[in-house]
Parts: sequence; C-alpha cells; structure tokens
Amino acid sequence: MSEILVIGSVALDTIKSPAGYSKEILGGSATYFSISASFFSRVNLVATVGADFPEENRKIIASFGVDLKGLEVKEGKTFRWEGSYVKDMNCAETIETQLNVFAEFKPCLPKGYEKSKYIFLANIDPDLQIFTLKRFSGKRFIGCDSMNHWIKNKNSSLKKMIKKTSIIFLNDMEARMLSGESNILKAGKYLLSLGPKFAVVKRGEYGAILFSKDFTLMTPACLLEDVKDPTGAGDTFAGGFMGYLAKTNKINEKNIKNALLWGSVMASFAVEDFSVNKFLKVTKKDIDKRYGEFKKSLVA
Amino acid sequence: MSEILVIGSVALDTIKSPAGYSKEILGGSATYFSISASFFSRVNLVATVGADFPEENRKIIASFGVDLKGLEVKEGKTFRWEGSYVKDMNCAETIETQLNVFAEFKPCLPKGYEKSKYIFLANIDPDLQIFTLKRFSGKRFIGCDSMNHWIKNKNSSLKKMIKKTSIIFLNDMEARMLSGESNILKAGKYLLSLGPKFAVVKRGEYGAILFSKDFTLMTPACLLEDVKDPTGAGDTFAGGFMGYLAKTNKINEKNIKNALLWGSVMASFAVEDFSVNKFLKVTKKDIDKRYGEFKKSLVA
Repeated sequence: MSEILVIGSVALDTIKSPAGYSKEILGGSATYFSISASFFSRVNLVATVGADFPEENRKIIASFGVDLKGLEVKEGKTFRWEGSYVKDMNCAETIETQLNVFAEFKPCLPKGYEKSKYIFLANIDPDLQIFTLKRFSGKRFIGCDSMNHWIKNKNSSLKKMIKKTSIIFLNDMEARMLSGESNILKAGKYLLSLGPKFAVVKRGEYGAILFSKDFTLMTPACLLEDVKDPTGAGDTFAGGFMGYLAKTNKINEKNIKNALLWGSVMASFAVEDFSVNKFLKVTKKDIDKRYGEFKKSLVA
Repeated sequence: MSEILVIGSVALDTIKSPAGYSKEILGGSATYFSISASFFSRVNLVATVGADFPEENRKIIASFGVDLKGLEVKEGKTFRWEGSYVKDMNCAETIETQLNVFAEFKPCLPKGYEKSKYIFLANIDPDLQIFTLKRFSGKRFIGCDSMNHWIKNKNSSLKKMIKKTSIIFLNDMEARMLSGESNILKAGKYLLSLGPKFAVVKRGEYGAILFSKDFTLMTPACLLEDVKDPTGAGDTFAGGFMGYLAKTNKINEKNIKNALLWGSVMASFAVEDFSVNKFLKVTKKDIDKRYGEFKKSLVA
C-alpha cells in the first residue's frame, strides 16, 4: 500500500436538486477525493480554507483517517460554490462561485508529503498544478482533473500539465471541448496524443471509458434508484480509482480494470446523498457488497 | 439452431444526417432485424410493401438468406419514412411518415411459419401484435418492440401485449415514457411489473440494460469513430440478440449475456453506413473480430 497526496479544494457548497436544498455543506474536490481514496489507502490532503471553516467539517474529513496537516487555514472566507441540478441532474448549473481564500491558494507541502508516489492534482489552475509538480522528482503516478474554465482560459498551460500526468480524468463534455471532437473515441485518442499514459472520460450515469495506447476499457455506472446530489461524483470516482491503485501499488491492466469498478462504486455512494453524508453512513462492508453486485451485473 | 420469425415493416427511408443525405433507401424494422439475425439463425420475414418496392431491395434482403415468402406485395405505395439526425445523432427528428400500404397491414403467415419458436413483433400497432400472437400456441420466445406513438395512443393494448411477451425492447426515452419514471432502474422495474420475463432498455451510444427478476445486466456500446446513420440500430440490436439466442436455443444467463454483446456488435455495424449497406460489406469474420475486440474492452 502506498500513500496518496491530493491537492485541491475544500469548500462550502450550496446545492439545489430535485431532492432538496442544502446550504453551505462540506464540499470541494479534495474533500470528495480524499474521503473516497481513504477506503483504500492513506491519504494526505493539501488545500486551503478560511477562518470561517466549521471545525465540524474538518472533523468529518479527519474521521476517515485523512491527514490534514496540509489543510491551511487563512484569514478570510472559505471557497463557496452554489449550484443547481433542478433542470438537469447530469449537469450542474453554477449559480455563484466565491473563490475567497482559494483565489490565493499556493499549495504548501508539509514535510514528508513530497514522498507520495501517488498524486492527484484536482481541478485547480493548471499553472498551479505545474508549479506544484515541480516539488516532486523521480517516478510518480500523477492524476489530474480540470474543467471547462481552464480549457477555455488556460488551454496551453493545461496541455502542458496533461503531458506531465500519468492519467487525466475529464467528463465527456470537457473531453469534447478540449479535443474539439464530438466523437468520444476521437476525443479519447486526442487526449492520449497530449502525452498522458491513460485518459479517463467520465460519462456520469453512463459510466466511464479509459483510453491507453495498449487497451481501451469501458464500464457502465452502478444503477441507482435515488440520486440526490451529483456534486463530487467525478472526484469520488478518481479517489476510488487512484486509492485502489495505490493500494495495489502496481499499474497493470488487471488493476486498472478493478480501479474503474471501484471508482464507479465509490461515485455511486457519493451521489446518493448531499455532501459526503453517505460515506458517514456506509461501512467498507457495504461498499464491498455493492462492488460484488455491480460486478455481477457486468457482461463480459 | 431454431428459426426466427419477424413481423414488422419493410420501408423506404429518406435520411439526413451530418454524414449526408440518402433518398428512399431500404429501411424498416423487419429489414434491419432480419438481416442482423440472419448472421446467427434462419429468419422468416412477414411484412408488406407496395408495388413500387424496388426488386433490388428485395434481392438485398434475400441475399442474407432471409425467407421472404411472407413479404406481401400490395397495390399502392411502400411505407416511407423521412428523418433527420442533423440536430441530434441520438434522436431522429421525423420529417414525414407516409404509411401507404402499411396502414392496412394484416400479418399473413405463410404455412410453416407458425412453428417458429422465436418470434419478434417489431414496432407495429399493439392490437396487431396481439392479433398476430393468437396464431401461435404453446411455448414460444416472444420479443416485442414499440414506440412513443403507441405508448401515447394505445397504452392499454401495449401493456396487454407486453404481458404476453418474453422480452420487451424499448429505448430509454420510451421506457421512461411508458413507466412515468425518469429513473432508469425504476423504469426497468416497472417494465418487469407488466409481466415480461426480460426488459431491455437500449441507450444508444451508451449501451443497454437488461432487467429480469433474477438478474440485471449492463453493457456499454461499441466505441465507433464514424456514425453515419443511427436508423435501425435498435432493430439490429434486437436481431443480433434474438438471432444469437435462437442459435443457442437455450435461455439462460450465460446466453443472455452473450446475446447482449452480439446485439451491441451488430448495432455498431448498422450505424456505420446508411441503410443496411454496411452488412453488404462485412463478413461473419469481421463481425467475430469486432466481437472479440469489444469483449476485450469490457471490464468485469
């Protein structure tokens, strides 16, 4: 088992969905990723919050054994995001983004963190992702996420960043946008042409596709009766995927296949409740059970 | 190996898609189904065309070994459908429907056809589907398709028909419409509650889900670089699915799993060219090759 380091956001989300309204609940890419990965590996988190960040939320993340030495508290307010899924459960409509202390985020690595073999650079400015990567030398397994904002406004930095990663995670809309290809197979090939070893295209309720030079792998998503809040599904997927890989500490086709399944299973729990609430209610046994059921439903 | 009987339409389609424009090309549910199934089993086709139906098209269907004794030629014009995929490749916009001789279609079974153990009632008036079924006694494996028009206008007949089938094939939009459930798992459960043994929800480029009392199975679709014309993909899927089952002549989970894969593979060829053109160019060897590649890309 190897340690994972995640660098991203810890936020307060306000979410409207057909299932209800939740104000200033625990969110952020690093939150979802770290909690998901914690079921498989030891996780170190680097992010920044404001002085107003509720102690209770810090305790929630810590309760999963996530190391929070890298969660810096700055004067000011925590990053806030408000989104709505009322029109479309598959696509968040951003109501408001308040970057607050996150606008000045400069990832600061606590001693020892630079040894992590598995690193996930969640959705932050690609220049910051590149800057952060400079702290690491030698062979690492580096995952990276991004979003439409950076594809549009920091395109060449993002491509430079993707070249340096082992695996890029994008959703289908982002993959199409970055590649300029509406066909998802062509989009996947384009992502690989940028230099990463693997490219994962996340398709929400339709599953995920992993592209590599040697093989392409597809998985459906878990079927769910009740989806309350899709926020964080992508980061939770990446957390399960990389968490599992770090646990095996061996990158081969078999482990990549299982990682896709674990990513899917973890994401399925994330969307069943607001914030990370579902993970407060399930045990590893519940997760293993769903993994078994999911595997049984797959055709191959 | 058992024979399959398909009752449906043989039509002349006019299609507009981003890949081009094709006027009065061979189409129809029974055409796509029978050609697809012919790669696995002997197929008997029952449909009606007008006196204007090109002999060349009849020869195309016959070239796949499909028995056309049940293709009745009536005075008048052949069923014509015009559709466009210019706005959305996943959803046809109907420009025009001319039922012509199809409006008076009364399936007439040539002698011997009533012995078929596998029967597919393609998308026709559910009252006609029920009427046709009366010709068969004893145990049969009955597949059935439908569409939004019948869900809306012949709802109770359609439900009566579904109760009599072994397997209902609907696309996700139709499944949601018939069930009144936007959640696809709930929609699938609803379909089963109507009485069929199996319910397949086809999701286009996202694959398919098979629901049954004992198990749920999911498959992604084959990844394709070039999709020219999605018309007939659903019937081609059903043809591959039921053709394979008829070939094995044994309904069990293992065969159902493979049937889902064969259905997906056959559908992938259908959409790569207009009409059934792609099937004129590929051999069983090409199909087997894609099946092998598809299987390799599946995670399980």
